[in-house]
Amino acid sequence: MQAVILAAGLGTRMGKFSKDQPKGLLKIAGREIIYRTLKILKNLEIKEFIIITNPKYKQSYENFLNQNKIKYQLILNHFPERGNGYSFYLAKDFVTEKFVLVMSDHLYEEDFIRTALKKEGLIVDKKGLYINPDEATKVKVEDGRVKEIGKNLDSYCGFDTGFFVLTPEIFKTAERLVKEKKVIELSEIIKEAKVKVSEVNGYFWIDVDTPKERKLAKHYLIKNSIKGTGDGWVSKLINRKISTKISEYLVDYLTPNQITFLTFLLGIFSAAVVWLSIPLAGILYQISSILDGVDGEIARASMRTSKLGGYIDSVLDRYVDFSFLLALACVIHPSYKFWIIIAFAIFGSIMVSYSTERYKASFFQDIYKIIPQMKYLPGKRDERIFITMLFCLVNRILELFILLAILTNIRVGLTLVLACRKKPETSF
Amino acid sequence: MQAVILAAGLGTRMGKFSKDQPKGLLKIAGREIIYRTLKILKNLEIKEFIIITNPKYKQSYENFLNQNKIKYQLILNHFPERGNGYSFYLAKDFVTEKFVLVMSDHLYEEDFIRTALKKEGLIVDKKGLYINPDEATKVKVEDGRVKEIGKNLDSYCGFDTGFFVLTPEIFKTAERLVKEKKVIELSEIIKEAKVKVSEVNGYFWIDVDTPKERKLAKHYLIKNSIKGTGDGWVSKLINRKISTKISEYLVDYLTPNQITFLTFLLGIFSAAVVWLSIPLAGILYQISSILDGVDGEIARASMRTSKLGGYIDSVLDRYVDFSFLLALACVIHPSYKFWIIIAFAIFGSIMVSYSTERYKASFFQDIYKIIPQMKYLPGKRDERIFITMLFCLVNRILELFILLAILTNIRVGLTLVLACRKKPETSF
Repeated sequence: MQAVILAAGLGTRMGKFSKDQPKGLLKIAGREIIYRTLKILKNLEIKEFIIITNPKYKQSYENFLNQNKIKYQLILNHFPERGNGYSFYLAKDFVTEKFVLVMSDHLYEEDFIRTALKKEGLIVDKKGLYINPDEATKVKVEDGRVKEIGKNLDSYCGFDTGFFVLTPEIFKTAERLVKEKKVIELSEIIKEAKVKVSEVNGYFWIDVDTPKERKLAKHYLIKNSIKGTGDGWVSKLINRKISTKISEYLVDYLTPNQITFLTFLLGIFSAAVVWLSIPLAGILYQISSILDGVDGEIARASMRTSKLGGYIDSVLDRYVDFSFLLALACVIHPSYKFWIIIAFAIFGSIMVSYSTERYKASFFQDIYKIIPQMKYLPGKRDERIFITMLFCLVNRILELFILLAILTNIRVGLTLVLACRKKPETSF
Repeated sequence: MQAVILAAGLGTRMGKFSKDQPKGLLKIAGREIIYRTLKILKNLEIKEFIIITNPKYKQSYENFLNQNKIKYQLILNHFPERGNGYSFYLAKDFVTEKFVLVMSDHLYEEDFIRTALKKEGLIVDKKGLYINPDEATKVKVEDGRVKEIGKNLDSYCGFDTGFFVLTPEIFKTAERLVKEKKVIELSEIIKEAKVKVSEVNGYFWIDVDTPKERKLAKHYLIKNSIKGTGDGWVSKLINRKISTKISEYLVDYLTPNQITFLTFLLGIFSAAVVWLSIPLAGILYQISSILDGVDGEIARASMRTSKLGGYIDSVLDRYVDFSFLLALACVIHPSYKFWIIIAFAIFGSIMVSYSTERYKASFFQDIYKIIPQMKYLPGKRDERIFITMLFCLVNRILELFILLAILTNIRVGLTLVLACRKKPETSF
């Protein structure tokens, strides 16, 4: 399949944000709107992109596309004032097969696009969970085909997602209308051609027309970037609520790797603070635990996830945990025998992560996916750090080590038991 | 493709080993010869097996095939004395397409079969690394086709591997010969039909005719079961040489999981012995390290590898290492400050494995494959345990901890550096 992207619009409603640059190149959560669409389409095996823009934006788009090494056809619309129907018509000679048509200023999550690609015609969403229904364009359907498109329909089937799966036949209607009228909107062509309508409901997509919508889009992108698997109840109830706010702020300024490094430094620093004040150190350690979610959130929201990033982050986390516990051990001047408990607590804390990650190395799948009961085992990192902070606040370090030594090693034992109870691979 | 397996032969040269059972069901390194071939063929997408045997072995084959839930066609040859050419002829009405023909008493490694399936006709091996060239059947070739087959050819192209990729056309020749003669060998049909000859050289395959060859086959299966990646120089120079001998013996008696468990027990026991005698404990620990290779060798040699087995083994190894180092730490009554070194040594020892396995969990590939320099970093488990034993023998435990604390953590640091220096994933 080919993809046609309409990017000739002048974006007058974006105010200062789009004074010099087209809406498609507006960065939201660290990535251009159009980058997201192109990247997802490319991952779904669409390799040919036909982009229609106006001469004013030619240079910007060429720079962007070349920088990202995207293969493209750039078509210039010298009369953008003739409407986006005319822009669409200009793709006529470049489209040779069934194709996707998408707007440059619409943001879609991957699952939306994946589902939509299997459908036909104009994609509507009955739910429109992330858009303002008063402002949105609605679609009226008759016999499975478009009857009416507009903002002020009294009854409608769903919202126009700006995403289409079409055949080149549509250009016949487009050509006729373009010859008849000076200004022609895409919706007129769609309506005139009685395009089929398909539903894709409930996914994240948004039409970015105003600065307010831009902010909202960023908010949802960060919110949807929480990975989830492996989050303990502290993450769910506390850490993620704060980390997403931080991510929303930092995504425009820092890369995921920079945040990984800063979080690591804060963790090591919190261990050093143990000698100064145990309660303060505990609080800093908990803050580093909250920040530990930010790198992943920003990476996913800005489509910058990297296997290496996740790997480095994990190894550094172990060094932070080790440093903090060892620092605590040092300041309490434990007895000879108590060092054994400390050793079990440190070892167990590392092994919780080891037993989880080693499972993935064997089975190439997340243990929380394969063994859902794992989610209910206490002792995940966010929980351990929160407990550590609480015990630091009341200065009960001996009790903390005893608790950690027992909790973590029991968790590892139960992990092994649960792994063994999973039904084995078939032999032949 | 279909697969035809000739299993009607009476195996008179196997002596007591095949008195009651057919040669194909002879276990070598814990698995029936025919199981290996069927399993490998099935993994290579061959789903239909046509097995020709004689009435005497009917029950044995049916039991075996049903037990292993293999889908099969069993054809009975009521006249096995008419030769294996006649057996082959009986497959005539069941073969509908290009097919593999293979002997039930030949053992092949997976790579041999994988390569051979892409070839055509009679597969010969010029090298015959694992067989006795005096006893083997040779093939003379003319214009890429069989000219002569026999044990006593003066000049020959290679050895007959007993593996064929044929088309149903061959049955015309078979039918003619079967009608002409009472006793007819497969080699006569192959020669008469002037079957094409293809080379597959240097892989492990063996024709199991005598008890001596059976022993040899087992030896090679174990030898070829060394995984290799992640083996340090102690494994290569010492451990594997001993563990393969042990594996050859134990493969007929114990399952991989039983050995994993016994090795774990020995490891924990060696830690307990520390209180009794440090040098003895060190030796036991090193023995457990040697045994640690056996479960994997037996699992691979007997085609019983399991992801779960590898996972459990890894986690238990960490508990053994922790127990042994902690036991050593306890008996030397270290000072307060020295406990910090001990903590670093224990933590670092676990982290060597963590940093390796976590890489696989991220990249779904072995770090030693992606970053070959990793092989030269010292500090792998076999090396650490060997060093530990040496220091135990001379009772230098303080020095051991200092060495481990430095060696392991430097290794982890270098692992991160090497991982980062690997060129990053492409962004678009």
